[in-house]
Amino acid sequence: MARFAIVTSEEIPKQMPAAFRALLPEHDFALYPDLGAADAIDYAVAWKPPPGVLVGLKNLKAIFSFAAGVESFLSDPHMPRAVPIVRAVSDVSRATMSGYAMAQILRYHHKLDHYQRQQAERVWKKTMPREPAETTVTILGTGVLGADLAGRLLPFGFPVVGWSRNPKNIAGIRNLHGPASFDEAMKAGNIVVCLLPLTPQTKAILDARAFALMPAGGFVINMGRGMHVVAADLIAALDSGHLAGATLDVTEPEPLPPADPLWRHPKITITPHIAGLMPPRRIMQNMADTVRHCLKSGKFEHTADLDRGY
Amino acid sequence: MARFAIVTSEEIPKQMPAAFRALLPEHDFALYPDLGAADAIDYAVAWKPPPGVLVGLKNLKAIFSFAAGVESFLSDPHMPRAVPIVRAVSDVSRATMSGYAMAQILRYHHKLDHYQRQQAERVWKKTMPREPAETTVTILGTGVLGADLAGRLLPFGFPVVGWSRNPKNIAGIRNLHGPASFDEAMKAGNIVVCLLPLTPQTKAILDARAFALMPAGGFVINMGRGMHVVAADLIAALDSGHLAGATLDVTEPEPLPPADPLWRHPKITITPHIAGLMPPRRIMQNMADTVRHCLKSGKFEHTADLDRGY
Repeated sequence: MARFAIVTSEEIPKQMPAAFRALLPEHDFALYPDLGAADAIDYAVAWKPPPGVLVGLKNLKAIFSFAAGVESFLSDPHMPRAVPIVRAVSDVSRATMSGYAMAQILRYHHKLDHYQRQQAERVWKKTMPREPAETTVTILGTGVLGADLAGRLLPFGFPVVGWSRNPKNIAGIRNLHGPASFDEAMKAGNIVVCLLPLTPQTKAILDARAFALMPAGGFVINMGRGMHVVAADLIAALDSGHLAGATLDVTEPEPLPPADPLWRHPKITITPHIAGLMPPRRIMQNMADTVRHCLKSGKFEHTADLDRGY
Repeated sequence: MARFAIVTSEEIPKQMPAAFRALLPEHDFALYPDLGAADAIDYAVAWKPPPGVLVGLKNLKAIFSFAAGVESFLSDPHMPRAVPIVRAVSDVSRATMSGYAMAQILRYHHKLDHYQRQQAERVWKKTMPREPAETTVTILGTGVLGADLAGRLLPFGFPVVGWSRNPKNIAGIRNLHGPASFDEAMKAGNIVVCLLPLTPQTKAILDARAFALMPAGGFVINMGRGMHVVAADLIAALDSGHLAGATLDVTEPEPLPPADPLWRHPKITITPHIAGLMPPRRIMQNMADTVRHCLKSGKFEHTADLDRGY
């Protein structure tokens, strides 16, 4: 039996420890701040931890993050740096994120917004589509989520370009990496999907310069973090007619304040950070599966690197 | 060298014969009505043929249809019944049709219409999604297009039920067939996608009775023919709140007249029969590939059966 601490500064259901015990009856779960003896805690299940709490768990062997993005851990200056942070990127979260991206990509490709406007005018008129072969999708960030999306896009005939910090070798796509090839990735992308982690290097990466590199009529989908996009630059690129549209599932700040101009822009779709949203039951089930897999194999996969920032 | 007749009652580009000759330089193409000696024609490339024309081509070995649906041939009472009709269902047309269906299914699943309404009110609020595992997609018509769609849906975790006239054995889905199991297929489908051919048996198959069988909150996507759906029954099922929405890529008649109530229904999305729309260049390339494949192999696949009606 291992002892788990559930640690977060967010409000979470009081019944979560009991629910985890039901899923993993061989282990015990306590909810911060009622952790009992701190030294008896083996693992933490955490998200947005209150600073200084995790470092107090002296015998922690691993931290399981509820989210794929782990920047909320970086804001804790006392994070225990030797403890692996396992990111929650299950099969289901991949399918959910990829499904959201596919919905946006196919909506753009099949010109569904155009037909929606036509419907409002009761106009029956076909518009010739672009060839999938002439619609390149550039995926910024080709970790497990980006690689999953690439695999689902290829059977539709879209050429896919992947760009990441480190070299990748994803089958069927053009793999680019590093700052020197960022411009090439942007120039190729009729559709650019941002799945990057937020780091000092990727903050504001989608700015006026980046948008100008994209082919005219392009479409931007941000599923990373709000701070990846310079909102004023995006609005300018849409207003000039250079970009055709954008979907933002993440904004800065969140929630997006009612007065923010992004809300009302006719070429921008806003969703409230739901691309990876799963029912609580499913999130817990995924976490339980991940915990069971790691503890059984003794291997901690999909770990974050605090120095790298993701 | 074989001699081809391009036969249609629709207006088509005058340069089509030359374009086909460029794609298939080993063959010759003539455009109806300038066919020269009728007995010298080996094959027809056709869509909505003027009645009586094809039967006059005495030495016709096969007819290549520009479309997957061949009901336009059935209205010719003089169709040469011994000549195989090869339906155009290329890899690209499958990807196009499946892409359209996926766009609609994922839009419904990720509640994008709901978030679009929230955006208009500048509301940032998450709504819990259904589990993919609890969102069954029923595909009516599991020919090459339906089978292709099933294969793309399964990796998202949606259970898939297929229903067709004859028994099928598509991997990973529940295969149902025949009139006796139609009710079972409808009862299972949170999302019902119609890819049926139009026959006397399938005309008006989606009526009040069929909609009532679906689980509450269901979504209907018609990509078959307009006459598969009883429009008044669909509107009633949406107005009662039983169904959540519908997308109609096909209507009866087409174009849908401006006064038709389907245009203005808030829960109905209308697109002008574009789910399988491809650029003319791509359509001709597909046809050329199909012709080359059939003539080389000597086998005519995906043929329609005039007695069966598809």
